[in-house]
Amino acid sequence: MYFGSDNQAGASEVILQALVAANQGNSAAYGDDDWSLKATQLIQQIFEIEAEVFFVSTGTAANCLALACMASPWQTILCHGQAHIINDELTAPEFFTQGARLIGLDAKQAKLSAASLANHLQQGAAHPPHNAEPGVLSLTQQNESGQIYSIDEIKALTELAHQHGLTVHMDGARFANAVASLGCKPADISWKAGVDVLCLGATKNGALAAEAVVFFNKELAKNFVAQRKRSGHLISKSRFLGVQFCAWLENNHWLELAQHANAMAAELEQALAKLPSLRTIWPVQGNELFMVMPKKLAQQARIMGAVFYGWPTNLLPETFQLSEEEEAVRFVCSFNSTSEQITELVTCFHQAAEKTAKV
Amino acid sequence: MYFGSDNQAGASEVILQALVAANQGNSAAYGDDDWSLKATQLIQQIFEIEAEVFFVSTGTAANCLALACMASPWQTILCHGQAHIINDELTAPEFFTQGARLIGLDAKQAKLSAASLANHLQQGAAHPPHNAEPGVLSLTQQNESGQIYSIDEIKALTELAHQHGLTVHMDGARFANAVASLGCKPADISWKAGVDVLCLGATKNGALAAEAVVFFNKELAKNFVAQRKRSGHLISKSRFLGVQFCAWLENNHWLELAQHANAMAAELEQALAKLPSLRTIWPVQGNELFMVMPKKLAQQARIMGAVFYGWPTNLLPETFQLSEEEEAVRFVCSFNSTSEQITELVTCFHQAAEKTAKV
Amino acid sequence: MYFGSDNQAGASEVILQALVAANQGNSAAYGDDDWSLKATQLIQQIFEIEAEVFFVSTGTAANCLALACMASPWQTILCHGQAHIINDELTAPEFFTQGARLIGLDAKQAKLSAASLANHLQQGAAHPPHNAEPGVLSLTQQNESGQIYSIDEIKALTELAHQHGLTVHMDGARFANAVASLGCKPADISWKAGVDVLCLGATKNGALAAEAVVFFNKELAKNFVAQRKRSGHLISKSRFLGVQFCAWLENNHWLELAQHANAMAAELEQALAKLPSLRTIWPVQGNELFMVMPKKLAQQARIMGAVFYGWPTNLLPETFQLSEEEEAVRFVCSFNSTSEQITELVTCFHQAAEKTAKV
Amino acid sequence: MYFGSDNQAGASEVILQALVAANQGNSAAYGDDDWSLKATQLIQQIFEIEAEVFFVSTGTAANCLALACMASPWQTILCHGQAHIINDELTAPEFFTQGARLIGLDAKQAKLSAASLANHLQQGAAHPPHNAEPGVLSLTQQNESGQIYSIDEIKALTELAHQHGLTVHMDGARFANAVASLGCKPADISWKAGVDVLCLGATKNGALAAEAVVFFNKELAKNFVAQRKRSGHLISKSRFLGVQFCAWLENNHWLELAQHANAMAAELEQALAKLPSLRTIWPVQGNELFMVMPKKLAQQARIMGAVFYGWPTNLLPETFQLSEEEEAVRFVCSFNSTSEQITELVTCFHQAAEKTAKV
Repeated sequence: MYFGSDNQAGASEVILQALVAANQGNSAAYGDDDWSLKATQLIQQIFEIEAEVFFVSTGTAANCLALACMASPWQTILCHGQAHIINDELTAPEFFTQGARLIGLDAKQAKLSAASLANHLQQGAAHPPHNAEPGVLSLTQQNESGQIYSIDEIKALTELAHQHGLTVHMDGARFANAVASLGCKPADISWKAGVDVLCLGATKNGALAAEAVVFFNKELAKNFVAQRKRSGHLISKSRFLGVQFCAWLENNHWLELAQHANAMAAELEQALAKLPSLRTIWPVQGNELFMVMPKKLAQQARIMGAVFYGWPTNLLPETFQLSEEEEAVRFVCSFNSTSEQITELVTCFHQAAEKTAKV
Repeated sequence: MYFGSDNQAGASEVILQALVAANQGNSAAYGDDDWSLKATQLIQQIFEIEAEVFFVSTGTAANCLALACMASPWQTILCHGQAHIINDELTAPEFFTQGARLIGLDAKQAKLSAASLANHLQQGAAHPPHNAEPGVLSLTQQNESGQIYSIDEIKALTELAHQHGLTVHMDGARFANAVASLGCKPADISWKAGVDVLCLGATKNGALAAEAVVFFNKELAKNFVAQRKRSGHLISKSRFLGVQFCAWLENNHWLELAQHANAMAAELEQALAKLPSLRTIWPVQGNELFMVMPKKLAQQARIMGAVFYGWPTNLLPETFQLSEEEEAVRFVCSFNSTSEQITELVTCFHQAAEKTAKV
Repeated sequence: MYFGSDNQAGASEVILQALVAANQGNSAAYGDDDWSLKATQLIQQIFEIEAEVFFVSTGTAANCLALACMASPWQTILCHGQAHIINDELTAPEFFTQGARLIGLDAKQAKLSAASLANHLQQGAAHPPHNAEPGVLSLTQQNESGQIYSIDEIKALTELAHQHGLTVHMDGARFANAVASLGCKPADISWKAGVDVLCLGATKNGALAAEAVVFFNKELAKNFVAQRKRSGHLISKSRFLGVQFCAWLENNHWLELAQHANAMAAELEQALAKLPSLRTIWPVQGNELFMVMPKKLAQQARIMGAVFYGWPTNLLPETFQLSEEEEAVRFVCSFNSTSEQITELVTCFHQAAEKTAKV
Repeated sequence: MYFGSDNQAGASEVILQALVAANQGNSAAYGDDDWSLKATQLIQQIFEIEAEVFFVSTGTAANCLALACMASPWQTILCHGQAHIINDELTAPEFFTQGARLIGLDAKQAKLSAASLANHLQQGAAHPPHNAEPGVLSLTQQNESGQIYSIDEIKALTELAHQHGLTVHMDGARFANAVASLGCKPADISWKAGVDVLCLGATKNGALAAEAVVFFNKELAKNFVAQRKRSGHLISKSRFLGVQFCAWLENNHWLELAQHANAMAAELEQALAKLPSLRTIWPVQGNELFMVMPKKLAQQARIMGAVFYGWPTNLLPETFQLSEEEEAVRFVCSFNSTSEQITELVTCFHQAAEKTAKV
């Protein structure tokens, strides 16, 4: 019963078979292979723009290489207080950018609001060069609390950012889930909404290890090749990276995988919400479900084999009251979650609830 | 009428004459001169401990070199949200530490509280190595809002820090003002209160450019010499650095300078508080005075020659209501401020108040 | 006709099928999966020591993360002047080590000699902290000119290094080829010969993208986990990394692949040496062949489809005379090179020789 | 008898008295003071160009901040193998540039030759992004072996550099000695000869601690202010930095000081060359003298109070034969060296020679 992270799933069979097929014969290396070229073209087609595209193996590398192309070492990077770059990538952003500073806003709200961003930007740098000035706005879509920014929300944020001279980065580790959920075109929530650079993640959605850094604003890409090489992220047998994206993007496979994961999360929420002691924190919009439950119940469910992680209580809404006996948790559904697995998990919670009730 | 910063004052004549005297003859360089040696001994005597002592020219260098010896690049440095290291040293802390992250706490309170520190430390790093863990606590004494931590307040904070495996740094750019104000021994608010490394600043208190990094915890000093050299902070004609500290520390000169500056600030507060439209934000404890006044009044006073800086309103107490027409400002008195200058400034404000009242 | 690099080959079918098999079901991520655990145990068994083992995707990451655990930012790293770390990894070593300096020795000789190392170490750092002192010796086995250090040669170098307080790194991107060639045990040319940290590369020898960093000296591993995370090299679906090593190491697969590549290179040398205008530069010991040939011949062969790279003439032995009309080239055989491909390449060169002779 | 370095001298009385005079009254800080402004204008006048000028306290800071504005972290910086930046600044260049690589050429020759530079540039980067490409040429004038490049020599080198897209840095820690020796205008050996950025050092020539970074190529100065601040090199009481340059430059003081130092070195060479066991290595062109002498003699002279440093034998010309009993040494004369001190040193050597002869 793995609902800990979309990283606990393996890879889509479609992608794996394409990988095996790509093994035939020799090939140019270091990104000059046919698969990487084709994957680039697919991204350009799907996003309807001649973007510069590069591939790497991890989301942290994608995000931090992008940020290193966008921020000076003496600038700040503004992001939501729950952002992956500030909470889950150690100090990789500082390492890659050579010392830029992350500023997390609205940690206790589900999304970064334009009002908070405006407020921060107005304060600005009181007296340069003593203060670090904002250089980049980073948004996550689908974000870390499972929420999805609407097209208008993104536009409001990017417009503010651009007005103040910032460039806009989007962490799209779960971008597919957002597109599937909104039913929009990929361009609508990226470059058409003011995003300069998108990190498009395939790993969490069916690939083995494949992330694309998509520069809509091509000037920003100038140093990417050098940055990637010197951080050890240029893959030699690059066909195995390119082919993952080819198979993921062809025939709408990526969106089908995401739709499935989203649907499973909705199904899970409906089933779990029936338990009287569980409360949903934020509405399910993509493939993630956040709930509050009694600590004893969570503990018992884990003993019985359920895998899911706690969520830091300092990231909960201020209006959300939590008793000492409760904890916040996250369930993540993935491309290969099944209704059987969900039934199994729900049954487990029912049994756990009975057990803990007896005690 | 310079009340903008203690940096706008020149140097004490005593120090300057010692500098001239030290010019005689040739001398070993790079810290091996007699003056640097003697200054080290003076610090050891005054602090009653065999500390490791190093000299540099700027406060930012002192703070950041100390932090680079204390924090790993993947740790966080906890500090007050108004700390100089987070607000006034650009991204120097990140540069010197190679990427450690600053976390500012209690930005809207005058001091960092043990409760906030405890709360942050309890959250900890939810899941290493994905999160950065706290490595250093940095305190400023006298702090950036002119407040002075009591011995007990420091002890409470350092005990918490040490319990969680952190080391403790003290930014002592205005340490002399704190000692003069508390009437304590230097050791009482430094190593005896749990401070591992003190940056003892002379520049703001009568020197030309001289800061000492004092390692009470000598193990932390291991890489200081290499760090200082590779950041270009090893002064060749080091006698001119050492002699400043000799003259500053001998005959209690440093504390006399600080007492004077503190007394001037108290005098200034008493005089300005008589104006009906001015409110003091935090009590004057050292050489700094923070007030709220009508924007028009501040503007007029500046036109008439008064030099003082605005203070970011996002750093004011939440309980402190500010109208749209008001601004927060800081006045700093220095070792060479005079009652005449204070009278001149107060007169200026009275005249400015009359002028703006008429309009 | 791909003889440009062992990176131009795909992956061994054995490894690919193991990858597909590992896809079943969900699994812990970030290195806590069963395959990574098993791969670690296999390496410990094969090297007959309880080493600390970590996996990453690229050779540059493996080398530079290892070096970052070994060298201070103010030390030098000594290596052969032809080393991959100094010639082919951009400034990644500087990036990961935060500024350590590479010193290349014996660039014009096929191997780093103990005499040169001793000479350099004797010069030492004339006056610290002004000079950078040596901290690490890095050796490549099989090295970049296709040569293999004997057990005694390695011992002589590592003893010198250890006497001077250096630790020893081995770039083993082609370590398998060296073991296969020497017919020794893996331990004989690694920890038993004084190597502290080995980067064991599978990518060039049949894997898709898999490198292990093996710390025989476990104290040096202290910061590896943090360093790997903050450089974006912690793979989330780590089973796909671990399983590559499992399949590569089981049943002696890795050495069979290497033996085959070595045998192919020997076969190629014998065949090409028959052409009158070609001269072998260094003896073929592993899977690489370096030759000098007329520029026109190389050009013609390339036109006819042969893929192989030029080799910088400043890296040739001083005794090796090269005319203006000649160039130096490298041929690399891989685990999947075939006698048919070699025949095809040799035929191509014969035809090219005829063509250029006519002109 | 201090002939170890020009850093062992104190400061010129003229400069010191100007410093004392500048202490009157309050002043703007952080470079906005009148003295820094005037010093900038003086440099612009003397160099006959509207350069961008910044001040710092140490030569290492000046050089490395300049290089950080000129080189990308993935480029190389070419310099003479005896350059201060490669031999005497630890790994500060790597730290400030965030990982650019120094390449030392012609270590065994007294100067960097255009032929060597051309040869290196032709090799270039065989295959980017795997190789680091040259980005900056750094020259020292007067260089580290006391030699002075002619105007034509500089032009030949800078033309080559510019042809290959490099920018040119000049380490002018002893620039005054070069101008005094050549009798040229400052512009002739700097921007008119193709230098983009000059580090003009006053410290070694009579100041306490004062270096100017002079950007003739003003585009390169773009990030200097941020770089200086974040490395802790922005001096708060900047008047004390600016005034040193004012006094140093006014009334031709700087060149008079340099002429004197040069003359003293010539005098010293003439006197010491009379001793039969001493040989001059390179001709005296500025204020430095390099000699070979018996180790016993050097040792005895040191015992008798003479201060001078050994010079690494690996930096001597290949044609210069050194016996096992000999060592190479450097004598440096400074602005305040006197004929009496020289006589004293020469007498000391004569007596030492007698003493060691007897043994």
